[in-house]
Amino acid sequence: MQNLKSLAEKHPSSLISLMHANNEIGSLNDVHAISQIARANQCYFHSDTIQTIGHYPIDLSNWDVDFITCSAHKFHGPKGVGFMYKNKALKISPMLTGGGQESTLRAGTENVTGIIGLTKALEIANEEIQEKIKNVQVIKTYFIEQLGKKIKGTCFNGDISPEGGLYTVLNVSLPPSKKSSTLLFQLDINGVFVSGGSACNSGAMGSSHVLTGINHPDNRSVVRFSFSKYTTTEEVDYAIDILKELI
Amino acid sequence: MQNLKSLAEKHPSSLISLMHANNEIGSLNDVHAISQIARANQCYFHSDTIQTIGHYPIDLSNWDVDFITCSAHKFHGPKGVGFMYKNKALKISPMLTGGGQESTLRAGTENVTGIIGLTKALEIANEEIQEKIKNVQVIKTYFIEQLGKKIKGTCFNGDISPEGGLYTVLNVSLPPSKKSSTLLFQLDINGVFVSGGSACNSGAMGSSHVLTGINHPDNRSVVRFSFSKYTTTEEVDYAIDILKELI
Repeated sequence: MQNLKSLAEKHPSSLISLMHANNEIGSLNDVHAISQIARANQCYFHSDTIQTIGHYPIDLSNWDVDFITCSAHKFHGPKGVGFMYKNKALKISPMLTGGGQESTLRAGTENVTGIIGLTKALEIANEEIQEKIKNVQVIKTYFIEQLGKKIKGTCFNGDISPEGGLYTVLNVSLPPSKKSSTLLFQLDINGVFVSGGSACNSGAMGSSHVLTGINHPDNRSVVRFSFSKYTTTEEVDYAIDILKELI
Repeated sequence: MQNLKSLAEKHPSSLISLMHANNEIGSLNDVHAISQIARANQCYFHSDTIQTIGHYPIDLSNWDVDFITCSAHKFHGPKGVGFMYKNKALKISPMLTGGGQESTLRAGTENVTGIIGLTKALEIANEEIQEKIKNVQVIKTYFIEQLGKKIKGTCFNGDISPEGGLYTVLNVSLPPSKKSSTLLFQLDINGVFVSGGSACNSGAMGSSHVLTGINHPDNRSVVRFSFSKYTTTEEVDYAIDILKELI
Protein backbone atom coordinates (compact mmCIF):
# COMPACT_ATOMS: atom_id res chain seq x y z
CA MET A 1 0.00 0.00 0.00
CA GLN A 2 2.91 2.33 0.78
CA ASN A 3 4.39 1.58 -2.64
CA LEU A 4 1.03 2.14 -4.36
CA LYS A 5 0.65 5.46 -2.54
CA SER A 6 4.07 6.67 -3.77
CA LEU A 7 3.29 5.57 -7.32
CA ALA A 8 -0.12 7.28 -7.31
CA GLU A 9 1.41 10.49 -5.96
CA LYS A 10 4.08 10.36 -8.64
CA HIS A 11 1.53 9.62 -11.41
CA PRO A 12 -1.75 11.38 -10.57
CA SER A 13 -4.81 10.79 -12.84
CA SER A 14 -3.52 7.40 -13.95
CA LEU A 15 -5.37 4.09 -13.93
CA ILE A 16 -4.85 1.77 -10.96
CA SER A 17 -5.75 -1.84 -11.79
CA LEU A 18 -5.52 -4.24 -8.86
CA MET A 19 -7.26 -7.57 -8.42
CA HIS A 20 -9.64 -8.02 -5.52
CA ALA A 21 -8.04 -11.43 -4.95
CA ASN A 22 -5.09 -13.01 -6.66
CA ASN A 23 -6.01 -15.91 -8.96
CA GLU A 24 -2.95 -18.01 -8.14
CA ILE A 25 -2.39 -17.64 -4.42
CA GLY A 26 -5.74 -16.22 -3.29
CA SER A 27 -4.45 -13.18 -1.37
CA LEU A 28 -7.16 -10.55 -0.89
CA ASN A 29 -6.51 -6.85 -1.50
CA ASP A 30 -8.16 -4.16 0.61
CA VAL A 31 -10.35 -2.48 -2.00
CA HIS A 32 -11.35 0.39 0.30
CA ALA A 33 -7.73 1.27 1.10
CA ILE A 34 -6.90 1.24 -2.63
CA SER A 35 -9.94 3.45 -3.38
CA GLN A 36 -8.72 6.02 -0.87
CA ILE A 37 -5.30 6.19 -2.51
CA ALA A 38 -6.93 6.40 -5.96
CA ARG A 39 -9.30 9.22 -4.99
CA ALA A 40 -6.59 11.21 -3.17
CA ASN A 41 -4.60 11.27 -6.41
CA GLN A 42 -7.42 11.60 -8.98
CA CYS A 43 -6.68 8.10 -10.26
CA TYR A 44 -9.19 5.75 -11.89
CA PHE A 45 -9.55 2.40 -10.15
CA HIS A 46 -10.29 -0.90 -11.86
CA SER A 47 -10.52 -4.06 -9.81
CA ASP A 48 -10.48 -7.53 -11.36
CA THR A 49 -13.10 -9.20 -9.16
CA ILE A 50 -13.18 -12.44 -11.12
CA GLN A 51 -12.12 -14.51 -8.09
CA THR A 52 -14.60 -12.90 -5.69
CA ILE A 53 -17.91 -12.16 -7.47
CA GLY A 54 -20.41 -14.80 -6.37
CA HIS A 55 -18.09 -15.82 -3.53
CA TYR A 56 -18.25 -12.75 -1.29
CA PRO A 57 -21.08 -10.25 -0.90
CA ILE A 58 -20.06 -7.35 -3.16
CA ASP A 59 -22.24 -4.25 -3.03
CA LEU A 60 -21.07 -1.63 -5.50
CA SER A 61 -22.99 1.10 -3.68
CA ASN A 62 -20.43 0.65 -0.89
CA TRP A 63 -17.41 0.33 -3.18
CA ASP A 64 -15.71 3.38 -4.58
CA VAL A 65 -14.45 1.84 -7.81
CA ASP A 66 -14.67 2.92 -11.45
CA PHE A 67 -14.57 -0.49 -13.09
CA ILE A 68 -14.85 -4.12 -12.06
CA THR A 69 -14.59 -7.22 -14.23
CA CYS A 70 -16.28 -10.60 -13.89
CA SER A 71 -16.08 -14.05 -15.48
CA ALA A 72 -18.97 -16.53 -15.19
CA HIS A 73 -17.06 -19.80 -15.05
CA LYS A 74 -15.56 -18.87 -11.67
CA PHE A 75 -18.99 -19.29 -10.02
CA HIS A 76 -20.20 -22.37 -11.92
CA GLY A 77 -21.56 -20.31 -14.82
CA PRO A 78 -20.77 -20.98 -18.49
CA LYS A 79 -17.24 -20.59 -19.83
CA GLY A 80 -16.42 -17.73 -22.15
CA VAL A 81 -18.73 -15.04 -20.84
CA GLY A 82 -18.19 -12.21 -18.39
CA PHE A 83 -18.98 -8.58 -17.87
CA MET A 84 -17.41 -5.28 -17.05
CA TYR A 85 -19.02 -2.75 -14.73
CA LYS A 86 -18.23 0.86 -15.54
CA ASN A 87 -19.16 3.92 -13.51
CA LYS A 88 -21.88 5.69 -15.54
CA ALA A 89 -20.08 9.02 -15.25
CA LEU A 90 -17.07 7.76 -17.22
CA LYS A 91 -16.75 7.47 -20.96
CA ILE A 92 -14.49 4.84 -22.48
CA SER A 93 -13.48 3.86 -26.01
CA PRO A 94 -14.30 0.39 -27.32
CA MET A 95 -11.54 -2.17 -28.01
CA LEU A 96 -13.70 -4.02 -30.52
CA THR A 97 -15.28 -1.76 -33.13
CA GLY A 98 -17.33 -2.20 -36.28
CA GLY A 99 -20.84 -2.82 -34.96
CA GLY A 100 -23.26 -0.85 -32.82
CA GLN A 101 -23.96 -3.58 -30.29
CA GLU A 102 -23.91 -2.87 -26.54
CA SER A 103 -24.26 0.89 -27.16
CA THR A 104 -21.20 0.70 -29.44
CA LEU A 105 -18.99 -0.34 -26.50
CA ARG A 106 -18.36 -3.84 -27.86
CA ALA A 107 -19.04 -4.77 -31.46
CA GLY A 108 -20.25 -8.25 -32.30
CA THR A 109 -23.41 -10.33 -31.92
CA GLU A 110 -23.92 -10.97 -28.21
CA ASN A 111 -23.49 -14.41 -26.62
CA VAL A 112 -27.12 -14.48 -25.51
CA THR A 113 -27.23 -17.93 -23.88
CA GLY A 114 -23.95 -17.16 -22.11
CA ILE A 115 -25.32 -13.90 -20.74
CA ILE A 116 -28.47 -15.62 -19.47
CA GLY A 117 -26.33 -18.41 -17.97
CA LEU A 118 -24.07 -15.91 -16.21
CA THR A 119 -27.06 -14.09 -14.74
CA LYS A 120 -28.66 -17.27 -13.42
CA ALA A 121 -25.38 -18.65 -12.07
CA LEU A 122 -24.66 -15.39 -10.23
CA GLU A 123 -28.15 -15.40 -8.76
CA ILE A 124 -27.59 -18.94 -7.43
CA ALA A 125 -24.04 -18.14 -6.23
CA ASN A 126 -25.32 -15.20 -4.20
CA GLU A 127 -27.96 -17.28 -2.40
CA GLU A 128 -27.02 -18.06 1.21
CA ILE A 129 -23.55 -16.72 0.55
CA GLN A 130 -22.53 -16.41 4.24
CA GLU A 131 -23.39 -20.06 4.85
CA LYS A 132 -21.42 -21.06 1.77
CA ILE A 133 -18.36 -19.08 2.92
CA LYS A 134 -18.51 -20.77 6.35
CA ASN A 135 -18.93 -24.30 4.98
CA VAL A 136 -16.24 -24.09 2.30
CA GLN A 137 -13.80 -22.47 4.74
CA VAL A 138 -14.27 -25.52 7.03
CA ILE A 139 -13.26 -27.80 4.11
CA LYS A 140 -10.25 -25.65 3.27
CA THR A 141 -9.09 -25.48 6.90
CA TYR A 142 -9.41 -29.27 7.16
CA PHE A 143 -7.37 -29.67 3.96
CA ILE A 144 -4.61 -27.39 5.30
CA GLU A 145 -4.44 -29.35 8.57
CA GLN A 146 -4.43 -32.78 6.93
CA LEU A 147 -1.86 -31.79 4.31
CA GLY A 148 0.46 -30.38 7.00
CA LYS A 149 0.16 -33.63 9.00
CA LYS A 150 0.49 -36.10 6.13
CA ILE A 151 3.09 -34.47 3.87
CA LYS A 152 6.07 -33.12 5.80
CA GLY A 153 7.67 -30.00 4.41
CA THR A 154 4.47 -28.65 2.84
CA CYS A 155 4.20 -24.85 2.78
CA PHE A 156 1.41 -22.55 1.64
CA ASN A 157 1.80 -19.55 -0.63
CA GLY A 158 -0.10 -16.36 0.09
CA ASP A 159 -2.21 -15.48 3.09
CA ILE A 160 -4.13 -18.56 4.25
CA SER A 161 -6.10 -16.84 6.99
CA PRO A 162 -9.86 -16.54 6.38
CA GLU A 163 -9.46 -12.74 6.54
CA GLY A 164 -6.51 -12.49 4.19
CA GLY A 165 -7.13 -15.14 1.54
CA LEU A 166 -9.85 -16.62 -0.63
CA TYR A 167 -11.70 -19.57 0.94
CA THR A 168 -11.89 -21.09 -2.54
CA VAL A 169 -8.18 -21.29 -3.39
CA LEU A 170 -5.14 -22.84 -1.73
CA ASN A 171 -1.71 -22.61 -3.27
CA VAL A 172 0.48 -25.42 -1.99
CA SER A 173 4.27 -25.55 -2.17
CA LEU A 174 5.44 -29.15 -2.01
CA PRO A 175 8.85 -30.47 -0.95
CA PRO A 176 11.20 -31.38 -3.84
CA SER A 177 10.46 -34.85 -5.23
CA LYS A 178 11.63 -36.96 -8.17
CA LYS A 179 8.08 -37.14 -9.48
CA SER A 180 7.56 -33.37 -9.51
CA SER A 181 7.80 -32.99 -13.26
CA THR A 182 4.79 -35.22 -13.89
CA LEU A 183 2.86 -34.38 -10.73
CA LEU A 184 -0.06 -32.53 -12.35
CA PHE A 185 -0.40 -35.22 -14.98
CA GLN A 186 -0.39 -37.99 -12.36
CA LEU A 187 -2.99 -36.18 -10.27
CA ASP A 188 -5.12 -35.73 -13.38
CA ILE A 189 -5.15 -39.41 -14.32
CA ASN A 190 -6.12 -40.18 -10.72
CA GLY A 191 -9.12 -37.88 -11.00
CA VAL A 192 -7.71 -34.95 -9.03
CA PHE A 193 -8.16 -31.85 -11.17
CA VAL A 194 -5.85 -29.09 -10.03
CA SER A 195 -3.65 -26.57 -11.71
CA GLY A 196 -0.03 -25.52 -11.54
CA GLY A 197 -0.96 -21.85 -11.52
CA SER A 198 -3.17 -19.71 -13.67
CA ALA A 199 -5.05 -21.23 -16.60
CA CYS A 200 -4.12 -18.10 -18.54
CA ASN A 201 -0.53 -19.31 -18.49
CA SER A 202 -1.13 -22.98 -19.30
CA GLY A 203 1.26 -24.00 -21.98
CA ALA A 204 3.48 -21.00 -21.27
CA MET A 205 7.13 -21.51 -20.53
CA GLY A 206 8.76 -20.24 -17.36
CA SER A 207 7.42 -19.84 -13.86
CA SER A 208 4.52 -17.75 -12.69
CA HIS A 209 5.15 -14.02 -12.24
CA VAL A 210 3.18 -14.24 -9.00
CA LEU A 211 5.43 -16.96 -7.54
CA THR A 212 8.51 -15.10 -8.74
CA GLY A 213 7.12 -11.99 -7.05
CA ILE A 214 6.90 -13.73 -3.67
CA ASN A 215 10.36 -15.35 -4.07
CA HIS A 216 9.08 -18.90 -4.24
CA PRO A 217 12.04 -21.32 -4.64
CA ASP A 218 12.26 -22.95 -8.08
CA ASN A 219 12.94 -26.48 -6.82
CA ARG A 220 9.55 -26.94 -5.16
CA SER A 221 6.35 -27.95 -6.99
CA VAL A 222 3.32 -25.71 -6.79
CA VAL A 223 -0.24 -26.94 -6.96
CA ARG A 224 -3.33 -24.76 -6.80
CA PHE A 225 -6.30 -26.49 -5.17
CA SER A 226 -9.79 -25.05 -5.53
CA PHE A 227 -12.77 -25.56 -3.24
CA SER A 228 -16.47 -24.95 -3.77
CA LYS A 229 -19.77 -25.76 -2.11
CA TYR A 230 -19.64 -29.04 -4.02
CA THR A 231 -16.32 -30.17 -2.47
CA THR A 232 -16.65 -32.91 0.16
CA THR A 233 -14.40 -34.07 3.03
CA GLU A 234 -14.11 -37.44 1.27
CA GLU A 235 -12.74 -35.75 -1.84
CA VAL A 236 -10.21 -33.87 0.28
CA ASP A 237 -9.05 -37.10 1.97
CA TYR A 238 -8.75 -38.82 -1.40
CA ALA A 239 -6.75 -35.95 -2.94
CA ILE A 240 -4.31 -35.93 -0.02
CA ASP A 241 -3.86 -39.73 -0.18
CA ILE A 242 -3.06 -39.57 -3.91
CA LEU A 243 -0.73 -36.62 -3.41
CA LYS A 244 1.11 -38.45 -0.60
CA GLU A 245 1.65 -41.49 -2.83
CA LEU A 246 3.06 -39.29 -5.59
CA ILE A 247 5.47 -37.23 -3.49
CA MET B 1 -13.04 -5.08 -59.93
CA GLN B 2 -11.38 -2.47 -62.09
CA ASN B 3 -11.35 -0.06 -59.16
CA LEU B 4 -9.96 -2.75 -56.84
CA LYS B 5 -7.23 -3.51 -59.35
CA SER B 6 -6.17 0.16 -59.52
CA LEU B 7 -6.17 0.42 -55.73
CA ALA B 8 -4.12 -2.76 -55.30
CA GLU B 9 -1.60 -1.58 -57.90
CA LYS B 10 -1.33 1.75 -56.15
CA HIS B 11 -0.98 0.11 -52.68
CA PRO B 12 0.86 -3.20 -53.11
CA SER B 13 1.30 -5.46 -50.03
CA SER B 14 -1.78 -4.04 -48.35
CA LEU B 15 -4.73 -5.93 -46.89
CA ILE B 16 -7.81 -6.41 -49.06
CA SER B 17 -10.92 -7.15 -47.03
CA LEU B 18 -14.03 -7.91 -49.05
CA MET B 19 -17.13 -9.83 -48.01
CA HIS B 20 -18.06 -12.97 -49.88
CA ALA B 21 -21.67 -11.74 -49.82
CA ASN B 22 -23.07 -8.45 -48.60
CA ASN B 23 -25.11 -8.78 -45.41
CA GLU B 24 -27.72 -6.19 -46.38
CA ILE B 25 -28.43 -6.75 -50.05
CA GLY B 26 -26.96 -10.22 -50.57
CA SER B 27 -24.74 -9.47 -53.58
CA LEU B 28 -22.01 -12.08 -54.04
CA ASN B 29 -18.41 -11.14 -54.74
CA ASP B 30 -16.19 -13.24 -56.99
CA VAL B 31 -13.62 -14.50 -54.50
CA HIS B 32 -11.38 -16.02 -57.19
CA ALA B 33 -11.18 -12.77 -59.17
CA ILE B 34 -10.31 -10.87 -55.98
CA SER B 35 -7.63 -13.45 -55.10
CA GLN B 36 -6.00 -12.95 -58.49
CA ILE B 37 -5.81 -9.19 -57.97
CA ALA B 38 -4.49 -9.71 -54.44
CA ARG B 39 -1.77 -12.14 -55.52
CA ALA B 40 -0.70 -10.02 -58.48
CA ASN B 41 -0.01 -7.15 -56.09
CA GLN B 42 1.34 -9.07 -53.07
CA CYS B 43 -1.74 -8.12 -51.07
CA TYR B 44 -3.23 -10.11 -48.21
CA PHE B 45 -6.85 -11.10 -48.71
CA HIS B 46 -9.45 -11.43 -45.98
CA SER B 47 -13.00 -12.39 -46.86
CA ASP B 48 -15.89 -12.01 -44.44
CA THR B 49 -17.76 -15.23 -45.23
CA ILE B 50 -20.31 -14.84 -42.46
CA GLN B 51 -23.24 -14.83 -44.92
CA THR B 52 -22.04 -17.84 -46.89
CA ILE B 53 -20.45 -20.43 -44.58
CA GLY B 54 -22.95 -23.25 -44.13
CA HIS B 55 -24.99 -21.91 -47.07
CA TYR B 56 -22.64 -22.63 -49.97
CA PRO B 57 -20.02 -25.36 -50.30
CA ILE B 58 -16.76 -23.59 -49.35
CA ASP B 59 -13.56 -25.58 -49.79
CA LEU B 60 -10.52 -23.64 -48.60
CA SER B 61 -8.19 -25.91 -50.55
CA ASN B 62 -9.67 -24.30 -53.68
CA TRP B 63 -9.75 -20.77 -52.31
CA ASP B 64 -6.66 -18.61 -52.42
CA VAL B 65 -7.43 -16.50 -49.34
CA ASP B 66 -5.37 -15.58 -46.27
CA PHE B 67 -8.20 -15.13 -43.79
CA ILE B 68 -11.90 -15.83 -43.59
CA THR B 69 -14.31 -15.06 -40.76
CA CYS B 70 -17.43 -16.90 -39.63
CA SER B 71 -20.30 -16.37 -37.20
CA ALA B 72 -22.40 -19.30 -35.94
CA HIS B 73 -25.80 -17.64 -35.64
CA LYS B 74 -26.00 -17.20 -39.41
CA PHE B 75 -26.42 -20.97 -39.87
CA HIS B 76 -28.71 -21.66 -36.89
CA GLY B 77 -25.80 -22.00 -34.46
CA PRO B 78 -25.54 -20.21 -31.12
CA LYS B 79 -25.23 -16.42 -30.96
CA GLY B 80 -21.97 -14.83 -29.90
CA VAL B 81 -19.47 -17.33 -31.27
CA GLY B 82 -17.51 -17.44 -34.49
CA PHE B 83 -14.08 -18.22 -35.83
CA MET B 84 -11.34 -16.83 -37.98
CA TYR B 85 -9.35 -18.96 -40.41
CA LYS B 86 -5.79 -17.84 -40.96
CA ASN B 87 -3.30 -19.20 -43.45
CA LYS B 88 -0.75 -21.12 -41.37
CA ALA B 89 2.15 -19.37 -43.09
CA LEU B 90 1.10 -15.96 -41.74
CA LYS B 91 1.79 -14.56 -38.32
CA ILE B 92 -0.59 -12.04 -36.79
CA SER B 93 -0.69 -10.05 -33.56
CA PRO B 94 -3.55 -10.59 -31.11
CA MET B 95 -6.12 -7.85 -30.46
CA LEU B 96 -6.95 -9.25 -27.03
CA THR B 97 -3.89 -9.89 -24.90
CA GLY B 98 -3.20 -10.94 -21.31
CA GLY B 99 -3.71 -14.70 -21.38
CA GLY B 100 -2.11 -17.57 -23.27
CA GLN B 101 -5.34 -19.10 -24.60
CA GLU B 102 -5.67 -20.14 -28.26
CA SER B 103 -1.88 -20.11 -28.71
CA THR B 104 -1.83 -16.53 -27.36
CA LEU B 105 -3.88 -15.34 -30.36
CA ARG B 106 -6.93 -14.47 -28.27
CA ALA B 107 -6.74 -14.09 -24.50
CA GLY B 108 -9.69 -15.15 -22.37
CA THR B 109 -11.38 -18.34 -21.26
CA GLU B 110 -12.95 -19.96 -24.33
CA ASN B 111 -16.72 -20.13 -24.89
CA VAL B 112 -16.66 -23.95 -24.89
CA THR B 113 -20.38 -24.66 -25.30
CA GLY B 114 -20.51 -22.01 -28.05
CA ILE B 115 -17.60 -23.62 -29.89
CA ILE B 116 -19.22 -27.06 -29.68
CA GLY B 117 -22.54 -25.57 -30.81
CA LEU B 118 -20.91 -23.85 -33.79
CA THR B 119 -19.20 -27.07 -34.85
CA LYS B 120 -22.41 -29.11 -34.68
CA ALA B 121 -24.49 -26.42 -36.41
CA LEU B 122 -21.97 -26.17 -39.25
CA GLU B 123 -21.94 -29.94 -39.64
CA ILE B 124 -25.75 -29.93 -39.97
CA ALA B 125 -25.74 -26.87 -42.26
CA ASN B 126 -23.32 -28.59 -44.64
CA GLU B 127 -25.48 -31.70 -44.95
CA GLU B 128 -27.33 -31.90 -48.28
CA ILE B 129 -26.28 -28.36 -49.03
CA GLN B 130 -27.13 -28.48 -52.78
CA GLU B 131 -30.65 -29.62 -52.02
CA LYS B 132 -31.01 -26.85 -49.45
CA ILE B 133 -29.81 -24.22 -51.94
CA LYS B 134 -32.33 -25.47 -54.51
CA ASN B 135 -35.28 -25.57 -52.11
CA VAL B 136 -34.69 -22.20 -50.48
CA GLN B 137 -34.11 -20.56 -53.86
CA VAL B 138 -37.57 -21.78 -54.91
CA ILE B 139 -39.09 -20.05 -51.86
CA LYS B 140 -37.16 -16.84 -52.56
CA THR B 141 -38.14 -16.82 -56.24
CA TYR B 142 -41.79 -17.36 -55.27
CA PHE B 143 -41.56 -14.45 -52.81
CA ILE B 144 -40.09 -12.15 -55.47
CA GLU B 145 -42.86 -13.06 -57.93
CA GLN B 146 -45.69 -12.67 -55.43
CA LEU B 147 -44.37 -9.40 -54.04
CA GLY B 148 -44.03 -7.94 -57.55
CA LYS B 149 -47.62 -8.96 -58.34
CA LYS B 150 -49.25 -7.88 -55.09
CA ILE B 151 -47.43 -4.65 -54.22
CA LYS B 152 -47.03 -2.34 -57.18
CA GLY B 153 -43.87 -0.29 -57.29
CA THR B 154 -41.77 -2.81 -55.37
CA CYS B 155 -38.08 -2.91 -56.33
CA PHE B 156 -35.24 -5.11 -55.20
CA ASN B 157 -31.80 -3.95 -54.11
CA GLY B 158 -28.71 -5.85 -55.17
CA ASP B 159 -28.40 -8.74 -57.59
CA ILE B 160 -31.43 -11.04 -57.22
CA SER B 161 -30.28 -13.67 -59.71
CA PRO B 162 -29.36 -17.05 -58.20
CA GLU B 163 -25.81 -16.58 -59.55
CA GLY B 164 -25.31 -13.06 -58.28
CA GLY B 165 -27.06 -12.95 -54.92
CA LEU B 166 -27.57 -14.96 -51.74
CA TYR B 167 -30.56 -17.29 -51.81
CA THR B 168 -31.05 -16.49 -48.14
CA VAL B 169 -31.47 -12.70 -48.31
CA LEU B 170 -33.78 -10.37 -50.21
CA ASN B 171 -33.58 -6.62 -49.84
CA VAL B 172 -36.88 -5.03 -50.78
CA SER B 173 -37.41 -1.37 -51.62
CA LEU B 174 -41.05 -0.44 -51.05
CA PRO B 175 -43.01 2.44 -52.58
CA PRO B 176 -43.39 5.51 -50.34
CA SER B 177 -46.25 5.12 -47.84
CA LYS B 178 -47.62 7.03 -44.85
CA LYS B 179 -47.04 4.05 -42.60
CA SER B 180 -43.36 3.69 -43.55
CA SER B 181 -41.98 5.06 -40.30
CA THR B 182 -43.57 2.30 -38.20
CA LEU B 183 -43.40 -0.46 -40.82
CA LEU B 184 -40.83 -2.69 -39.08
CA PHE B 185 -42.65 -2.31 -35.78
CA GLN B 186 -46.00 -3.20 -37.37
CA LEU B 187 -44.51 -6.24 -39.09
CA ASP B 188 -42.97 -7.33 -35.80
CA ILE B 189 -46.24 -7.21 -33.84
CA ASN B 190 -47.82 -9.23 -36.63
CA GLY B 191 -45.19 -11.96 -36.24
CA VAL B 192 -43.08 -11.08 -39.28
CA PHE B 193 -39.49 -10.74 -38.11
CA VAL B 194 -37.44 -8.80 -40.60
CA SER B 195 -34.85 -6.11 -40.40
CA GLY B 196 -34.34 -2.67 -41.87
CA GLY B 197 -30.71 -3.35 -42.66
CA SER B 198 -27.81 -4.76 -40.73
CA ALA B 199 -28.25 -5.76 -37.08
CA CYS B 200 -24.85 -4.17 -36.48
CA ASN B 201 -26.46 -0.79 -37.16
CA SER B 202 -29.67 -1.29 -35.20
CA GLY B 203 -30.25 1.77 -33.10
CA ALA B 204 -27.86 3.78 -35.25
CA MET B 205 -28.99 7.02 -36.81
CA GLY B 206 -28.90 7.68 -40.52
CA SER B 207 -29.24 5.36 -43.47
CA SER B 208 -27.18 2.32 -44.35
CA HIS B 209 -23.81 2.93 -46.03
CA VAL B 210 -24.65 0.08 -48.39
CA LEU B 211 -27.92 1.68 -49.54
CA THR B 212 -26.20 5.04 -49.83
CA GLY B 213 -23.51 3.33 -51.91
CA ILE B 214 -26.04 2.05 -54.44
CA ASN B 215 -27.91 5.39 -54.55
CA HIS B 216 -31.10 4.10 -53.01
CA PRO B 217 -33.67 6.95 -52.76
CA ASP B 218 -34.35 8.15 -49.20
CA ASN B 219 -38.15 8.27 -49.53
CA ARG B 220 -38.59 4.50 -49.96
CA SER B 221 -38.67 1.98 -47.10
CA VAL B 222 -36.22 -0.87 -47.10
CA VAL B 223 -36.91 -4.27 -45.58
CA ARG B 224 -34.48 -7.19 -45.52
CA PHE B 225 -36.21 -10.57 -45.68
CA SER B 226 -34.30 -13.74 -44.81
CA PHE B 227 -35.03 -17.28 -45.93
CA SER B 228 -33.86 -20.62 -44.61
CA LYS B 229 -34.68 -24.30 -44.98
CA TYR B 230 -37.31 -23.72 -42.31
CA THR B 231 -39.21 -21.07 -44.30
CA THR B 232 -42.48 -22.28 -45.82
CA THR B 233 -44.64 -21.03 -48.70
CA GLU B 234 -47.43 -20.37 -46.19
CA GLU B 235 -45.15 -18.06 -44.23
CA VAL B 236 -44.24 -16.22 -47.43
CA ASP B 237 -47.92 -15.75 -48.33
CA TYR B 238 -48.68 -14.51 -44.81
CA ALA B 239 -45.79 -12.03 -44.82
CA ILE B 240 -46.87 -10.58 -48.18
CA ASP B 241 -50.50 -10.25 -47.03
CA ILE B 242 -49.45 -8.37 -43.90
CA LEU B 243 -47.06 -6.18 -45.88
CA LYS B 244 -49.78 -5.33 -48.41
CA GLU B 245 -52.15 -4.28 -45.62
CA LEU B 246 -49.50 -2.02 -44.13
CA ILE B 247 -48.42 -0.29 -47.36
